[in-house]
Amino acid sequence: MSLSVKILGCGSALPSVNRCATAQIVIHNTHPYLVDCAESTQVQMRKYGIRMAMINHIFISHLHGDHFYGIFGLLSSLGLLGRTNDLYIHCHEDLQFMLESKYSPVKIEELGFKIIFVPLKYDKVELIYDDKGIEIYSIPVEHRIPTCGFIFKEKPLLRNIKKEMIEKYQLTVSEIVAIKNGSDLYLENEIIPNQELTLDPPSPKSYAFITDTLPLKSVEEAIAGCDVLYHEATYENDLIKRAQETCHTTAGQAAEIAKNSGVKQLLIGHYSKRYKNTELLDKQAKEIFENSIAVEDGMEFNI
Amino acid sequence: MSLSVKILGCGSALPSVNRCATAQIVIHNTHPYLVDCAESTQVQMRKYGIRMAMINHIFISHLHGDHFYGIFGLLSSLGLLGRTNDLYIHCHEDLQFMLESKYSPVKIEELGFKIIFVPLKYDKVELIYDDKGIEIYSIPVEHRIPTCGFIFKEKPLLRNIKKEMIEKYQLTVSEIVAIKNGSDLYLENEIIPNQELTLDPPSPKSYAFITDTLPLKSVEEAIAGCDVLYHEATYENDLIKRAQETCHTTAGQAAEIAKNSGVKQLLIGHYSKRYKNTELLDKQAKEIFENSIAVEDGMEFNI
Repeated sequence: MSLSVKILGCGSALPSVNRCATAQIVIHNTHPYLVDCAESTQVQMRKYGIRMAMINHIFISHLHGDHFYGIFGLLSSLGLLGRTNDLYIHCHEDLQFMLESKYSPVKIEELGFKIIFVPLKYDKVELIYDDKGIEIYSIPVEHRIPTCGFIFKEKPLLRNIKKEMIEKYQLTVSEIVAIKNGSDLYLENEIIPNQELTLDPPSPKSYAFITDTLPLKSVEEAIAGCDVLYHEATYENDLIKRAQETCHTTAGQAAEIAKNSGVKQLLIGHYSKRYKNTELLDKQAKEIFENSIAVEDGMEFNI
Repeated sequence: MSLSVKILGCGSALPSVNRCATAQIVIHNTHPYLVDCAESTQVQMRKYGIRMAMINHIFISHLHGDHFYGIFGLLSSLGLLGRTNDLYIHCHEDLQFMLESKYSPVKIEELGFKIIFVPLKYDKVELIYDDKGIEIYSIPVEHRIPTCGFIFKEKPLLRNIKKEMIEKYQLTVSEIVAIKNGSDLYLENEIIPNQELTLDPPSPKSYAFITDTLPLKSVEEAIAGCDVLYHEATYENDLIKRAQETCHTTAGQAAEIAKNSGVKQLLIGHYSKRYKNTELLDKQAKEIFENSIAVEDGMEFNI
């Protein structure tokens, strides 16, 4: 079991040569999930060896161009590459209307695969995806247009059964399944407690992606206990007024959220174009929450 | 006076890390004209030092994604950069309908500058732009959807007056203007012929951009006498059937057009993704028309 995130783009509205606008790949085991899809995302995927055909779910935080202008090229390329599997796009309903309209940039009816649009809700935290290994939640945040963050939570893993116990008690398949799920072993004259038979599994991991937003108490609550938080930090602390006006967050505010929510690591990104290097933002975040990293495109983090 | 072209992207439908889909900057003196605008064009402009604010005219050959998906990000960035000058987009009318629709990817009414859409015509060669130094023509070509190529033609330059003649005959400003335009000089008892007063100016240059299309006789006629021709060569010669089916051109066919039209130099591009390097296409073009070059992103040609 593994959870990781690859940064495809950590820039904001004005992309540069070294910094694509927002896009990330969250990989749970071998399954990649695309979070936001700025212009050039498909090229970044090629650059970093992400097989775009593997993606079945795309999550779009909001409909500002620096978070979704890459969707047209990506869909078009998936069609040209012969995709037939359904593709789920979790997004504001306007993206569906755009792609289904007469003047859509992509003729989605000609793509050769079906797009299933899953509209996000903006009034409460919601479970939007669930399989046997992971749950994905949307969290409403506060930006200039309807916007959501996302939380990826691994489900608790089954207990690891000690190999020697299988042999010692000649366990059947159904007994093994029950024990891995936490049961004790009932013998004729004896009960073997589960902790004698098993080892703790690795604890499930979780990752929160929060951009673009004002700093929010509701986010702190929703992400409490997450292992890693990616939070936008568009501006340095001195530009707090500008951050407020544009519904963004400063490096210091992002770090406060990390500290208050009890996450183990903070990744900051979505930098204003003015920051050619991120030393200042990195420093300001670390002053409040030491385990902070100002990310750059191409960085990968195991969670 | 100068005319040059900078290749921002020479790939086709599936962009790669080293090859952006189609976009070029034609520079006449200091004025840049953008021809096609694939995804990532704005980043390519930054990479190659093209100031996007300087662009007043954009020419979109057709509405396949690999020729226009970059327009949304470019317009959005121009708005963020504070542009107020009108921007002309010469394109199929559907792009206007798309950008003016309720679900446009860019809210053009919020950009802060006006877009003037100039619809292309697909039934004849047409003069679509004209200033004191250059004429730009659209040429209908034959692709799967309505498509145009473009020709950039410098206007004949004024004759260069010899400095010593200004002094010798104490020429007035109006006499100088007349002589530069080809007049002789009328003195009281004498007529000084223009060729004694002036030197030939550099001959006006011209550049033709032709993509995506079947190879066409009508193109050969329209571009006759151009200095430099960029012609798509999506496929190698052996894939002529594939080229025909998809309404594209092979390297050999592009070279035939160059030879028949009497251009001085051929640039080929718009390569299928299968060509990691372009040696074969370059060779096949050169076999028919020696002064051919298989271009790559970032190359610049003075015309």
